[in-house]
Amino acid sequence: MDRPSLPEPEPLLALIEALRRLPGVGVRSARRMAYHLMQHDRPGAGLLADCLSGAIARLGHCQRCNTFTEDEVCATCLSPRRDPTQLCIVETPADQNVIESSHGYRGLYYVIMGRLAPLEGVGPRELDFERLIARACDGVVQEVILATNFTAEGETTAHFLAELLRSRGLSVTRLARGVPAGSELEYVDAGTIAWALMERRAT
Amino acid sequence: MDRPSLPEPEPLLALIEALRRLPGVGVRSARRMAYHLMQHDRPGAGLLADCLSGAIARLGHCQRCNTFTEDEVCATCLSPRRDPTQLCIVETPADQNVIESSHGYRGLYYVIMGRLAPLEGVGPRELDFERLIARACDGVVQEVILATNFTAEGETTAHFLAELLRSRGLSVTRLARGVPAGSELEYVDAGTIAWALMERRAT
Repeated sequence: MDRPSLPEPEPLLALIEALRRLPGVGVRSARRMAYHLMQHDRPGAGLLADCLSGAIARLGHCQRCNTFTEDEVCATCLSPRRDPTQLCIVETPADQNVIESSHGYRGLYYVIMGRLAPLEGVGPRELDFERLIARACDGVVQEVILATNFTAEGETTAHFLAELLRSRGLSVTRLARGVPAGSELEYVDAGTIAWALMERRAT
Repeated sequence: MDRPSLPEPEPLLALIEALRRLPGVGVRSARRMAYHLMQHDRPGAGLLADCLSGAIARLGHCQRCNTFTEDEVCATCLSPRRDPTQLCIVETPADQNVIESSHGYRGLYYVIMGRLAPLEGVGPRELDFERLIARACDGVVQEVILATNFTAEGETTAHFLAELLRSRGLSVTRLARGVPAGSELEYVDAGTIAWALMERRAT
């Protein structure tokens, strides 16, 4: 499939190549997407082109929390109803939304927009940790809550940040590990049970 | 994840919605794609926007075989080295490429750009079968080779077209079913073996 014998028109080839830059899209998916848009959804293709251009032109990063925003500082960072002494560090805006939807947090956020991944060449410099530290050391923040993912890379990022921030006199915490709410022990993986045992609490 | 509690900027939301129109892309993939493009690959986003606009503006259908082309009639249909008495009917340009790469066919093609799918409201009218029949009945074509997929919908399409075309005096054939080249019988599914038995040939 990679080397078709029939010449494909250049605009189609260019579109397939451009679609391959989307994460998780290989040449087959890209070709299927291109056929679909060109055959069945040209209005959708036009809309996508406009939305891409619009997002490039209008979307920037919040100067305080680094999330995507159209303004200099996002609405969350400007809100007077948030507790500025707590700063929750997340990998992506999607993670921030999950924490927000728990209704268990009223502090502010910092969005890394990634995680340490040395094998991919993503280090502290690429993620601009200096900016993160400057934000956390503004003199108002007292506690930093590390809410990176519980994956190998997320844990590495949390450990790294914990050392950096603790050495600057901040209180650093991490989301609790344990058995998910509503789950039956029989179906929980052994690693989670091991953590839940190690971090068991007096009731 | 569908209803984040934090307001997302409008250009980001619009981009996520537009990406969802790609086949096989749900809201989570679309959000991941949008984050990726906006955070790590703005040149890729711009390229994709340009390629979409370019394809919309420049890509049409071949008047003879219905494949995507920038010209009125595609290079394959214009080639004097192809046998115009044979017409191979395929669902997509990708299928056409597979047949071409077998080096076993020197005739012409007609690309349906889809298949009959009554449950999705795709019938003979939506696929413009009248145009297909007009092409096959040009007086030069003698044999029509049905090369739609060997799926339920592809088979339905082949049966339907076979009846239509045979009633117009054309010789209609279908790609052979059987054991794939290079395969060990132990690993071939029973349905394929059953077909291979039914269509066994004297050697």
